[in-house]
Amino acid sequence: MSWPINVTIKEVGPRDGLQNEKKLIPTKVKTDWINQLSQSGLRHIEITSFVHPKWVPALADAKDVVKSIQRKEGVVYTALVPNQKGLEAAIETNVDEIAVFMSATETHNKKNVNKSIDETLPVLRQTAEEAVKANIPVRAYVSTAFFCPYEGRTNSENVRRISESLLEIGAYELSIGDTVGTASPMQVEDTLNHLLKGIPANKLAMHFHDTRGTALSNTLKALEMGIQTFDSSCGGLGGCPYAPGASGNTATEDLLYMLHQMGIKTGVSEEKMVENAMFMENHIGKPLPSKALQAHKGKKAILAKNGENR
Amino acid sequence: MSWPINVTIKEVGPRDGLQNEKKLIPTKVKTDWINQLSQSGLRHIEITSFVHPKWVPALADAKDVVKSIQRKEGVVYTALVPNQKGLEAAIETNVDEIAVFMSATETHNKKNVNKSIDETLPVLRQTAEEAVKANIPVRAYVSTAFFCPYEGRTNSENVRRISESLLEIGAYELSIGDTVGTASPMQVEDTLNHLLKGIPANKLAMHFHDTRGTALSNTLKALEMGIQTFDSSCGGLGGCPYAPGASGNTATEDLLYMLHQMGIKTGVSEEKMVENAMFMENHIGKPLPSKALQAHKGKKAILAKNGENR
Repeated sequence: MSWPINVTIKEVGPRDGLQNEKKLIPTKVKTDWINQLSQSGLRHIEITSFVHPKWVPALADAKDVVKSIQRKEGVVYTALVPNQKGLEAAIETNVDEIAVFMSATETHNKKNVNKSIDETLPVLRQTAEEAVKANIPVRAYVSTAFFCPYEGRTNSENVRRISESLLEIGAYELSIGDTVGTASPMQVEDTLNHLLKGIPANKLAMHFHDTRGTALSNTLKALEMGIQTFDSSCGGLGGCPYAPGASGNTATEDLLYMLHQMGIKTGVSEEKMVENAMFMENHIGKPLPSKALQAHKGKKAILAKNGENR
Repeated sequence: MSWPINVTIKEVGPRDGLQNEKKLIPTKVKTDWINQLSQSGLRHIEITSFVHPKWVPALADAKDVVKSIQRKEGVVYTALVPNQKGLEAAIETNVDEIAVFMSATETHNKKNVNKSIDETLPVLRQTAEEAVKANIPVRAYVSTAFFCPYEGRTNSENVRRISESLLEIGAYELSIGDTVGTASPMQVEDTLNHLLKGIPANKLAMHFHDTRGTALSNTLKALEMGIQTFDSSCGGLGGCPYAPGASGNTATEDLLYMLHQMGIKTGVSEEKMVENAMFMENHIGKPLPSKALQAHKGKKAILAKNGENR
């Protein structure tokens, strides 16, 4: 069995992770955290969202966050934008890249952006074209690509159709999202088999949520099928706000652990990522779902108990 | 890619899960739990250990547990035994099967049973021979098969040598243990490549711990290599006693979720297993690591918040 030699990790914790947190995180803490994340070897960080604060109050300080961080050379800082208004904020604050989004299922898209899929595409096309004119690369999320909380199992052909539309309007990469975290390796295989018919693997990223614990097994399947880019969230942030133990995105530390143990290079420091997760865990005030983080804390506790100091 | 149509799950929560718990669980709670586990479709449950209570105080009530449970027809009830003395207790209490154990690394074996590997084998041989004479099937654990906390990465050839010895003394199945929970899919592939040279896949079970979140990706790799038997622990019990959030064995519910989503039959009810995990979580008094359990609780919390009642 073979898998890629190198993998690119796109950290989405400051946006996808924090957007669902009940506890309001001060802007200063967010920017300190993003600055730390920038020092861990990551080359891509999605730092906030220019969605209307009415919908995502946790990220109402989007502009302040983008303006306050220390940009590290070589790191691409991305903001999520829903439309041209979001793009204007992105241009004003000088982000490096925008990410647009659309669901692969009608009901989820309607609930999320109050438009049908066919109504959403022209909005994204206009946004993407303006962005490209302004020399801002566009990434595109395909949400509910595996399962929709309203419609059930997503039709893989719909995922392919929407993916191709998003590439056609100018996205350089698609992030295929298991929004609810229900996918299994078999579904990943099926969906990727459909997508890879018409789309090269290097234009696809996988965006798994670990709600049922399958994020890393889904990652393994995607690696086996040639995917080399994965979204993840430091600490595994992004869980359901009503369930303290529930998982969010793939935890970046867990992903790093598995990849590095398999000899796959990421350029990102596991040690620093665990520190970054611990930093945010202390601010959020509850254990984050990342297993690598909890294992690290367990190891420290044992060493402390044994009077060892390393 | 293909994987097996059927998988056998061996539930080890009452033994491997509870043996590390700091909180003492009353015998009545254990037996109620085992009785519930028996009703979930499981065919194999490891219910306790006849190791000296000095070493595993949490299971000091081993005989009482075995005597108090309601045996369900078709379910094999197993006890862990270290030697002939343990076997005597197993015979006295009429367990259906015994499991013996040995480490693949010298230092871990020495720390665990105070004997070298070469000194342990004759003890296990005698125990296994007596068990077979008494019509009690013998399962054998190979611990630290991937990594040893004292010696580091385990040599796969040593794992093969010990595995073949354990089959030769009469074990019908080997459970290959990632005791510390550090294995990655690449290590699983490497170790299984060595083992499958001389041992048929149907004599091998995998026993993963989810300490770093890799248990299900390791399971996927093992499935792809033809393994059909997996040990797991209801609720993901068995974590480090000094780290509240740290993971133990593969959580049975998480394993069931992935397998069933992949169309693999287990005969075990996911719904009942989540209820069983919730039962033990309430007694232990802290969230268990199982993701499927926490996702289930999150879903219930959302429905309750929305005033829905299903």
